[in-house]
Amino acid sequence: MRPRRREAQRAGAAAPEPRSTRYRNLVNPFEPVRIFSDDQVASMHHAALDILEHQGMRVLSARGRSVLRSAGAPVDDSSQMVRLEPGMVSKAISTIPAEVALIARNPARSCRVGGRHVVFAPVAGPPSVSDLERGKRTATLEDYRDLVRLSQAFDVIHVLGQMVEPQDTSVSERHLETSLAQLTLGDKVPHFYCRGEAQLADCFAMLCIANGIDEATFRSAPRCYSICNTNSPLQLDVPMTDGIIDFAANGQLMIVTPFTLAGAMAPITISGALTLSHAEALFGITLSQIVQPGAPVMYGSFTSNVDMKSGSPAFGTPEYAKAAFGAGQLARYIRAPWRCSSATASNAPDAQAVYESQMSLWGALLGGCHFMLHAAGWLEGGLTASLEKFILDVEMLQMFAELFQPVLASAEEIGVEAVAEVGPGGHFFAAAHTMQRYRDAFYSPLVSDWRNYGTWAADGAKTATERANERWHETLASFQPPALDAGVREALTAFVERRRREGGAPPAS
Amino acid sequence: MRPRRREAQRAGAAAPEPRSTRYRNLVNPFEPVRIFSDDQVASMHHAALDILEHQGMRVLSARGRSVLRSAGAPVDDSSQMVRLEPGMVSKAISTIPAEVALIARNPARSCRVGGRHVVFAPVAGPPSVSDLERGKRTATLEDYRDLVRLSQAFDVIHVLGQMVEPQDTSVSERHLETSLAQLTLGDKVPHFYCRGEAQLADCFAMLCIANGIDEATFRSAPRCYSICNTNSPLQLDVPMTDGIIDFAANGQLMIVTPFTLAGAMAPITISGALTLSHAEALFGITLSQIVQPGAPVMYGSFTSNVDMKSGSPAFGTPEYAKAAFGAGQLARYIRAPWRCSSATASNAPDAQAVYESQMSLWGALLGGCHFMLHAAGWLEGGLTASLEKFILDVEMLQMFAELFQPVLASAEEIGVEAVAEVGPGGHFFAAAHTMQRYRDAFYSPLVSDWRNYGTWAADGAKTATERANERWHETLASFQPPALDAGVREALTAFVERRRREGGAPPAS
Repeated sequence: MRPRRREAQRAGAAAPEPRSTRYRNLVNPFEPVRIFSDDQVASMHHAALDILEHQGMRVLSARGRSVLRSAGAPVDDSSQMVRLEPGMVSKAISTIPAEVALIARNPARSCRVGGRHVVFAPVAGPPSVSDLERGKRTATLEDYRDLVRLSQAFDVIHVLGQMVEPQDTSVSERHLETSLAQLTLGDKVPHFYCRGEAQLADCFAMLCIANGIDEATFRSAPRCYSICNTNSPLQLDVPMTDGIIDFAANGQLMIVTPFTLAGAMAPITISGALTLSHAEALFGITLSQIVQPGAPVMYGSFTSNVDMKSGSPAFGTPEYAKAAFGAGQLARYIRAPWRCSSATASNAPDAQAVYESQMSLWGALLGGCHFMLHAAGWLEGGLTASLEKFILDVEMLQMFAELFQPVLASAEEIGVEAVAEVGPGGHFFAAAHTMQRYRDAFYSPLVSDWRNYGTWAADGAKTATERANERWHETLASFQPPALDAGVREALTAFVERRRREGGAPPAS
Repeated sequence: MRPRRREAQRAGAAAPEPRSTRYRNLVNPFEPVRIFSDDQVASMHHAALDILEHQGMRVLSARGRSVLRSAGAPVDDSSQMVRLEPGMVSKAISTIPAEVALIARNPARSCRVGGRHVVFAPVAGPPSVSDLERGKRTATLEDYRDLVRLSQAFDVIHVLGQMVEPQDTSVSERHLETSLAQLTLGDKVPHFYCRGEAQLADCFAMLCIANGIDEATFRSAPRCYSICNTNSPLQLDVPMTDGIIDFAANGQLMIVTPFTLAGAMAPITISGALTLSHAEALFGITLSQIVQPGAPVMYGSFTSNVDMKSGSPAFGTPEYAKAAFGAGQLARYIRAPWRCSSATASNAPDAQAVYESQMSLWGALLGGCHFMLHAAGWLEGGLTASLEKFILDVEMLQMFAELFQPVLASAEEIGVEAVAEVGPGGHFFAAAHTMQRYRDAFYSPLVSDWRNYGTWAADGAKTATERANERWHETLASFQPPALDAGVREALTAFVERRRREGGAPPAS
């Protein structure tokens, strides 16, 4: 049953050609998996419209209520509740762009979401970071920079993000530091947090400096993205509401994502949690399309369940995968690009972390997801960014990227002649059909160890997590930041220094 | 973002109802994923027919060649090559049963393969076994018995198998010992190896004793299964050929599975490796249907790739998942129930073992697989059965079983009233909609730890693999064999003792 090694070694003597660009501009060839019937999807959509029409959402931002009132939404200022007529929602749905082209500083890093296109984004938001040597600890700016480097280093990570909250930087200056790190250590599309107009103005200004563009050019196409998490159930806070408005007004990509844990902040049923999530996403999307019809916006979903014995949130569960399939159907129902997430509740980068992440990845990607947030590094329900998990996730993402590559089945590709050449009981290592293809035939893994037990044991019997540790060390040690004009770098640094002297910008709340 | 625990604890005070039967009689609700176009599938099928017509297979069994010659196949006795006309293959395809009902000693353990039905079978064949305490070691009969106990203990494992090769038992008596263990420690459908007519006669006789049936009743429906691995490329050895004949003649389930490693024993392309596998499977299936039209038979596939740098086999790769999707399409093309596998090349029950197994599981199960061999315990390319991996796999299988449960979306299920009851910013822990459903709403995991980091760390910071170790110890410690009439047990033991005295039965080769 074992192949003959000598021939393979001979055949494989030359190193495989690099083929890193294979992991950019991913196209998902699979028909999305459906879990709900068309009638069930329509029922959930109409129940969501019912919620928006008769209950509405509490909008904490006076600016947001004012925009919605002007568009004709019934607003009750005492309760801060804003209701939406179905017609207003339908009108907004009709202007959602089906596809969004995100423009990066480096054109080779530009990417598309929607249609068959898929983007992988790193973990966002953890206050902590961990690795095998240093354990779990509060994240610093240097940790953030390391995570920008890792996100930049792997082609399969398509955009940058807020991989950790660097807590050694004040909240008034943090956006300056994280923007500077993204714009100088990376050339992929950056992420900016919505923490008030003043912070966003800084981030947008820095992006214009980095990309060498004026404000009008900036507004003409999306060059950054942000996430708006609603405060489920049925609430939208000030920075999130204002973020939707500012991103729409500036033509930048906003991803509206309710975080609906079935049984906790959402109904305990998958269909109920999805319906609430759908209502809230529709609300945010409607606000965006009121501000600017056609503004780039995505339908986000993050529906999971809790452990009903303890109340602990769970991720990557069977219910999570079901919800992902269902959310994909709801997104397609309104023809919106869809964002989903890779997630796990595991406290360690171990077997549980991997099977929960895999359940999330398959649920989302076979469900037709266009933007996969938290795709690398997420651990502990999103409270920690793990460097080993980051590498394990990159391995898994690369495997999906390979799975997305087209299969061929021409007569030449099938190789009936090769079968005749080899004959019964023979082997294909040296067949002409093999020799023409062996360099680039298969995925070459980042972490997986396929050596036999003896060789592996003699080399320290390292687990995949231990090998992932070696990979991130190597990646950081060999990291080279992308080219950036010295004048631009100076201008960015000067901007940050000036704004620091001015006290930065306190976050809105 | 965190749910309020107190309410959840109150709500969840009573233990959830047991619902183990949910994992029996699995029905896969998903439309199979397609990776090849219909034209590509037809091309591969016709290329396989071409191989069978013009090259044929080398059949080492004179008995097999004789059966095929009698049915009209051109046979060259000097080269042992047997060719099949397309018409003969088409005729065989037309009599393959679309579904097979496997009858267990305990009717509650009977199961179906084909259609939407799915069966999970444990790992088969490793010479070694491993666990965290004792490491990797040669498998013994007691290890085999432990693996029967584990396979019996979990509802999500639907049939028994040859989980390890117990090497402290001679090859002439091993089939007696493994059959005895399956028939006395379990009441699920057993697996018998094809190692010659004499061994099979023993196994069949023991099954009749255990089930209290005569030979005619035994032959009337499938009550055991076996695997025939072709010796790719294009070769079929004596015990495998004769096993196909004996299983078909006795109306028992034979699974014909070529083991085609792309680049080694098969063409380097996925379509080429699948085509060779398809040709070989069609050959075995044709033999089975010649012996008895309508005999229960499955289309097996086990196509993976090798590392072209070292020749090492790889499993659970992107290519593996592609091949699984493609094999499912080929199986449906000939309307045969389809067997696939869960596999990994990892040497440890670690993150790699899990992501490779997940790639296999999703590839097979979303590909529409009906019988998943090696679904629990497989490690190290099938050379070791790992007890921890067995438990991790059971967890993953249970997650799939849960994913297969239907979703509901009635107005009551969605719960718009519950959303109104809770209101903006509230929580659903105590909502009536939640209270009616919380006991049975979500999957309750076997290994996953959803506690917060502090609690988990204070409890020893155990990884999922370490917790899996505790689970198999607990499962074995509390194992109770299923009820078995004392007279039957005595008769089985007497049979084994008599056959031992007679020298057992040497395996055919």
